[in-house]
Amino acid sequence: MKQHKYIYSFGGKKAEGKADMKALLGGKGANLAEMTNIGLPVPAGFTISTEACTYYYSHARRFPAGLNGAIRTSLGTVESRVGKTFGDLENPLLLSVRSGARASMPGMMDTILNLGLNDETVKALIRKTGNARFAYDSYRRLVQMYGDVVMGLKPESENERDPFELIIEEKKRQRGVEHDTDLTAEDLADLVKLFQHAIATKLGKKFPQDPWEQLFGAIGAVFSSWMNDRAIAYRRLNHIPAEWGTAVNVQAMVFGNMGENCGTGVAFTRNPSTGENEFYGEYLLDAQGEDVVAGVRTPLPVALLADRYPKIHTQLLKVRRTLERHFRDMQDIEFTIEKGTLYMLQTRTGKRTGFAAIRIAVDMVKERLITPKEALMRVEPEQLNQLLRPVFDLDQKRQAVENGRLLAKGLNAGPGAATGKVVFTAADAEEWKERGERVILVRIETSPEDIKGMDAAEGILTARGGMTSHAALVARQMGKVCVAGCGSLEIDYAMRRMMVKNNIIRQGDAISIDGTTGEVILGELMTRPSDVVRVLIQKELDPGASEVYETFRKLMLWSDQFRSLRVRANADQPDQSLVAIAFGAEGIGLCRTEHMFFGGDRIDAVREMILAADESGRRRALAKLLPMQRQDFVEIFRVMKDRPVTIRTLDPPLHEFLPHTEREIDLLASKIGVSREQVNMRMAQMKEFNPMLGNRGCRLGIVFPEITEMQSRAIFEAACQVKKEGIDVHPEVMIPLVGFVNEFKEEEQIVRRVAAEVFQANQIKVKYLVGTMIELPRAAVTADEIATIAEFFSFGTNDLTQTTLGLSRDDSATFLPQYLDHGIFEQDPFQTIDRKGVGVLMEIAVQKGRSVRKTLKIGICGEHGGEPKSVAFCSELGVDYVSCSPYRLPIARLAAAQAAITAGTRPAVKNSSNAKRRKR
Amino acid sequence: MKQHKYIYSFGGKKAEGKADMKALLGGKGANLAEMTNIGLPVPAGFTISTEACTYYYSHARRFPAGLNGAIRTSLGTVESRVGKTFGDLENPLLLSVRSGARASMPGMMDTILNLGLNDETVKALIRKTGNARFAYDSYRRLVQMYGDVVMGLKPESENERDPFELIIEEKKRQRGVEHDTDLTAEDLADLVKLFQHAIATKLGKKFPQDPWEQLFGAIGAVFSSWMNDRAIAYRRLNHIPAEWGTAVNVQAMVFGNMGENCGTGVAFTRNPSTGENEFYGEYLLDAQGEDVVAGVRTPLPVALLADRYPKIHTQLLKVRRTLERHFRDMQDIEFTIEKGTLYMLQTRTGKRTGFAAIRIAVDMVKERLITPKEALMRVEPEQLNQLLRPVFDLDQKRQAVENGRLLAKGLNAGPGAATGKVVFTAADAEEWKERGERVILVRIETSPEDIKGMDAAEGILTARGGMTSHAALVARQMGKVCVAGCGSLEIDYAMRRMMVKNNIIRQGDAISIDGTTGEVILGELMTRPSDVVRVLIQKELDPGASEVYETFRKLMLWSDQFRSLRVRANADQPDQSLVAIAFGAEGIGLCRTEHMFFGGDRIDAVREMILAADESGRRRALAKLLPMQRQDFVEIFRVMKDRPVTIRTLDPPLHEFLPHTEREIDLLASKIGVSREQVNMRMAQMKEFNPMLGNRGCRLGIVFPEITEMQSRAIFEAACQVKKEGIDVHPEVMIPLVGFVNEFKEEEQIVRRVAAEVFQANQIKVKYLVGTMIELPRAAVTADEIATIAEFFSFGTNDLTQTTLGLSRDDSATFLPQYLDHGIFEQDPFQTIDRKGVGVLMEIAVQKGRSVRKTLKIGICGEHGGEPKSVAFCSELGVDYVSCSPYRLPIARLAAAQAAITAGTRPAVKNSSNAKRRKR
Repeated sequence: MKQHKYIYSFGGKKAEGKADMKALLGGKGANLAEMTNIGLPVPAGFTISTEACTYYYSHARRFPAGLNGAIRTSLGTVESRVGKTFGDLENPLLLSVRSGARASMPGMMDTILNLGLNDETVKALIRKTGNARFAYDSYRRLVQMYGDVVMGLKPESENERDPFELIIEEKKRQRGVEHDTDLTAEDLADLVKLFQHAIATKLGKKFPQDPWEQLFGAIGAVFSSWMNDRAIAYRRLNHIPAEWGTAVNVQAMVFGNMGENCGTGVAFTRNPSTGENEFYGEYLLDAQGEDVVAGVRTPLPVALLADRYPKIHTQLLKVRRTLERHFRDMQDIEFTIEKGTLYMLQTRTGKRTGFAAIRIAVDMVKERLITPKEALMRVEPEQLNQLLRPVFDLDQKRQAVENGRLLAKGLNAGPGAATGKVVFTAADAEEWKERGERVILVRIETSPEDIKGMDAAEGILTARGGMTSHAALVARQMGKVCVAGCGSLEIDYAMRRMMVKNNIIRQGDAISIDGTTGEVILGELMTRPSDVVRVLIQKELDPGASEVYETFRKLMLWSDQFRSLRVRANADQPDQSLVAIAFGAEGIGLCRTEHMFFGGDRIDAVREMILAADESGRRRALAKLLPMQRQDFVEIFRVMKDRPVTIRTLDPPLHEFLPHTEREIDLLASKIGVSREQVNMRMAQMKEFNPMLGNRGCRLGIVFPEITEMQSRAIFEAACQVKKEGIDVHPEVMIPLVGFVNEFKEEEQIVRRVAAEVFQANQIKVKYLVGTMIELPRAAVTADEIATIAEFFSFGTNDLTQTTLGLSRDDSATFLPQYLDHGIFEQDPFQTIDRKGVGVLMEIAVQKGRSVRKTLKIGICGEHGGEPKSVAFCSELGVDYVSCSPYRLPIARLAAAQAAITAGTRPAVKNSSNAKRRKR
Repeated sequence: MKQHKYIYSFGGKKAEGKADMKALLGGKGANLAEMTNIGLPVPAGFTISTEACTYYYSHARRFPAGLNGAIRTSLGTVESRVGKTFGDLENPLLLSVRSGARASMPGMMDTILNLGLNDETVKALIRKTGNARFAYDSYRRLVQMYGDVVMGLKPESENERDPFELIIEEKKRQRGVEHDTDLTAEDLADLVKLFQHAIATKLGKKFPQDPWEQLFGAIGAVFSSWMNDRAIAYRRLNHIPAEWGTAVNVQAMVFGNMGENCGTGVAFTRNPSTGENEFYGEYLLDAQGEDVVAGVRTPLPVALLADRYPKIHTQLLKVRRTLERHFRDMQDIEFTIEKGTLYMLQTRTGKRTGFAAIRIAVDMVKERLITPKEALMRVEPEQLNQLLRPVFDLDQKRQAVENGRLLAKGLNAGPGAATGKVVFTAADAEEWKERGERVILVRIETSPEDIKGMDAAEGILTARGGMTSHAALVARQMGKVCVAGCGSLEIDYAMRRMMVKNNIIRQGDAISIDGTTGEVILGELMTRPSDVVRVLIQKELDPGASEVYETFRKLMLWSDQFRSLRVRANADQPDQSLVAIAFGAEGIGLCRTEHMFFGGDRIDAVREMILAADESGRRRALAKLLPMQRQDFVEIFRVMKDRPVTIRTLDPPLHEFLPHTEREIDLLASKIGVSREQVNMRMAQMKEFNPMLGNRGCRLGIVFPEITEMQSRAIFEAACQVKKEGIDVHPEVMIPLVGFVNEFKEEEQIVRRVAAEVFQANQIKVKYLVGTMIELPRAAVTADEIATIAEFFSFGTNDLTQTTLGLSRDDSATFLPQYLDHGIFEQDPFQTIDRKGVGVLMEIAVQKGRSVRKTLKIGICGEHGGEPKSVAFCSELGVDYVSCSPYRLPIARLAAAQAAITAGTRPAVKNSSNAKRRKR
């Protein structure tokens, strides 16, 4: 019977594995094989496959039959390749044993170096190298690692120190030296003995002198490390299945610490921070790999090798070119120089910042290394944020943190950097801004009436609310920096101050918030808008002058070539609409009319309408709002031109518009000429236990049809006006919170009646659609009824998530952390669409809706519309467009392109004209 | 070509139609035919079918071709049958034309009598009858009805009086008489002229003298009346499709107003109030049908006919027997006696009270008129309420209303009658009750902490909240009388008073509330518990002594024989459990543990737990609760014996348990030894925007696993204790508000671990199940995941409705009336399961749940569990049991039987033993 193959050898320009065998050989093993195959100098060795690990776990931690024999055979090959023999007393082969899973799990699993040393072979090594200190240091490291990892001599509690380190310290104390490097060969030989003694006495078993016992023990230990607590936690966090298992790489040791002509280094084939096309790394002479990382000695920039060892440097540059040409991506490599010979110990795709990812992807297309399609797949859509947000000076921030100025950490709700003086009310924010101050608005939570204050602030900091709280949502739509849900703030509105970490921050004190990290820092830090924003929005830079902008532009261009999903913006105001167009919006997917209700005198008219005793009173107040609302639409239509604009009729519960303080109530009462008691009584009547599920959305329009009437009139009068100006306007009226087809029908009839009246009066007609939000489970399951009259659907995934999960996003802070921590949610359902729950209802809605109206236009305008995984899901569902806040449009465009590429769809519509596209 | 048959004749013991042709002939026409066929004296005539009406509406209000000819032919038959001729100048036939739809629509459509009279035939009628007054009165009636109904001479506005009545009044004024009956033949002849003149001048067309024109006009008018506003409104209210159309009955007139030996009457074949088997009706001598109803003269009991016209009386009794034997149900009849000859003008199934419905159904089984199965289908399940609720003395109530003591009308949320002194707080209710007062608890709304006060009160009256508000829900579970959502009350807690309709009601004033009608009445009214309750619950009457009880018992017995759905009760306390068993509960489907948290010292421990700074503080408080909670379960288990008891772990948000007033807060702070500020701060932290969607249900147990632990321990320790007493206890632990399988898994693991520990400690094992509520849309769509570990599902249709519809039942009062009125909801979704929305999700849950666990036990424990249409839906869905408040159990049992009968299912399980049944 042919035995199952568990071992794949590499060495001498030939390997049994290759790069695409990562599932079997792990990332490290596959790439060692690949490097061997393409002729790079890799020390010989072999990889024990992940299948052996899987076997190990499914058979009570036993090796598969025949594995031991196969290891011996493969090791024989290694011996003949390097001309050394394992356990030999003349020229002993030393081995490294390293883990290597399919996905990178840095630092999670174990490694043992210098296997094969024992009390005898160490002497042979001395004889061979003439370097006793090197030999004993290697032996010392082996015993220490082996004693810890394989034999399990560890600190007994978290408070204890490592027993081996304690022995080393005692030795240094005895010898009166400070550094390990000051210890002599004799000291190290002594340490080996002391280590072995400690193992024997504390564990009751001896450090194995048999190299083979060492090897098998090490392999078993690496397998076992797959199931250590750290590895399990890491896998859970990164969604890596336990079934994958780890491979084990057994490889001949090479030494960068044998003195002259020796060294070791790590490098990136390009700059991982900026993406610049330069060889970027560090090296240490006479050192082992771990020393570079440990930071005992300061490594030198790899460029300096050119002076010292020009041949090695040239060789490294050649390796760099070879690797990039071969892997067609930036690589993160480890190398060792042993006596003037270069060895490659690892290569893998290098981690990089968003800046770097985008630049490298675009550059590599220019260099013809990859195609635009590949480039698109190389960038995480969220990384685009780094190109759009204002930035802090990183050094300055680091210094501040080191000086103890980090006050707190909240949720990174609105990426970017903002600095300014603390204010605690929206009114203060506006007032301070007007007199030229930059302010950070700090609130327990924000509400719609804070909008203008939020707009005036550089950034928003809240104590409550999650990633999709009002503050976070509005901040992202505005492109504002926001740190939300920062629970450790104790805000005292009355005293205009907050307490955090024993600091009292008063109104006017400066703070800085980093919405990309969630950090809140005492004092000011320097910020500036990103280049892309300066070019696109502020028109400050000559586009050509900014490489970053140019890179961004390319990526967006390619994205638009590949995506089939349309992108629209959630925008309520002309200036937001301008930003939206700059960021590529093909229309507005959600224009929230309520945000328009807070400006200037409007709120008075709104409140008068709400508090009116009867319909005629409401109509009087609405008549005051009509011209203002109409003007809003006129301005938005003018900006958006022939692009569709979806306008949602009034959605939030009316009590959100009412005043809160006694003073405001008094003021309002006198303004609208009723008693304070009447205002209070009406407010008490309007109080709701669960406003989310109360009188809002289309329910308002059904109870007060005159509101829908006024809004429809404003929309259509504005549309007629701009049409007369020559704009081919496309309003789409959207009814929110529909659960029953009859709700939609009532509202739709009002809209159509008013439209007809306005067109008649203006002697002009405008094409328009009437559609609905799908944001209640009932709307999803009765979508076939609703689609008989609704001309489009737009998924309101925020509310749909809240109702489907029975979960108020504003109230989830008390348990959401536990839910994420316990893995109850695979991801925050308010960030990424919950496919199994909300997604199933969306599927039902799409299927039922299109079953009665084949051409039903379907979009999504919840916050998920700008989140890459959700965009991918929408693409799979066959949704026509996603709509998101303007600053997330580039992310949506890239995510949409990636979804199209993943689905292998062709760019079907992109060949048609722009005008045609916009009309969809 | 054979013409379509639109006309069905009857008369002379032979009819072309019969009773089961109601769809074609309408109820009246079909029953006239049937009466003719079984030999009853019906004046000859014919029915124009509903198909003609349908044709009429689908062809621009034109008659089908040939209909006119067919009418002439059929009328010929009538003429020959009665020996009179239409329009004849010697012996003129007069006709009535009446509508008659498939479903009874009393008073909604039009009728015209005495057709065929004109200026000539009226003289012939005088000659023939020798009664000029009768002839002119008949003619006067014709012109008046025809002018109104067919020609359309009506008041021009709602404020105007009928033009014909004005003419009559003017005539009476001229003649100086008071009653119509005082007008002479000449006066009436004059009125005919005046009427005709008014028609001619006001409408510009003449009253038709041609009898045929009269007839066709009348038939068209009856068809048209199908679409009058009243009829449309009535159909919408009663879910009658417009497509049905009405039939038209054309029939020879008979006259009860021709003097001596003449009369007319209406009667029920049994007493429609009590169901007693007695002939029950009224008659008037020398009168037409409308006079009986009009109340101008006081009719006499039909029994009195026996003295005056014994032959007629005997004949009527025979008719009564014939009709009951034939129709096998109580009939509502109209008859006329013309010159000593009895004519039957109508028979139909008689409307009856709940009492009567039940008694008649049971009696008719005794009389072998119907089978038990038929008897079950004869009773509306809700009618059983009338047998269970306390009752007011009706005369006394009527008097009170007449005296202006009706204060307000709210929702009839908890049927029954209650009277007592007004109190405004739960504490007062308890205190007053203790000193022997009967009280009505009046609250703006109730909350869980009012439970004990509600229990102490005779009835509950609230100003806010709907049919499924907290007050309504708890009241029904307790069997308390409740009037909810009585918006016109202005309650002032501080002053301990309420204002309503200019009355100030102070604490201690007596009011009476009728939870069956929603009436609130000033002052005391007499009440008493129903017989059934006195027998079953209070054990006051000898069962045999109460006929009502015996009737109830029979109906329940039959229900249990036919139903296949199990019934369980929602009960939290031993006394409720006793009531539940008395009403037939086969288990407890929902034991809400939170209701147990409010008694005595418990609430202190609960609050201490909530406000604890850390887990150990919570555990200390929970340890105090454990013995109390355990004792609750012991007592419930003892009552329920071997029946399953489903216990739900803590569900409501914790802030519901916290105090509200400053005084209470101070008291609590000192009791648990923390500062008032700390209590306030913790309370502020716990405030939620939407508590319905906040930290509640299983989320509590995940954040504070020690709560689930304590509750599990209490359940299993109690179970072990009663098992040792010899009770075969069956606890079922139910986890609320699960949306994610992992939520359930975490809680289930705690329950099972604690169970194992308790069994170990007690050296005894108890069989138990762990299951979940399905009350979130996400739970429904992921039921296949959840059912992999959940052993049972129980639909929480209250919350499932709220989340699916995005509708808080407590906040819906502002728009629910409009929604019902506009027909947006076909019915209140909190009363009847919304099949298209919530129902679809339930179907998905049942299908997905059973796809992975075939034997999955599924129940429903929302308020819908006791609502007949919802019970029927559950039966269709294949749910195993419904659970409802104890007082609704009889309703659920009957509804379940009806569902089984409707589905034609056999009583599959009922043959097995009781014990086996209970274990399911």
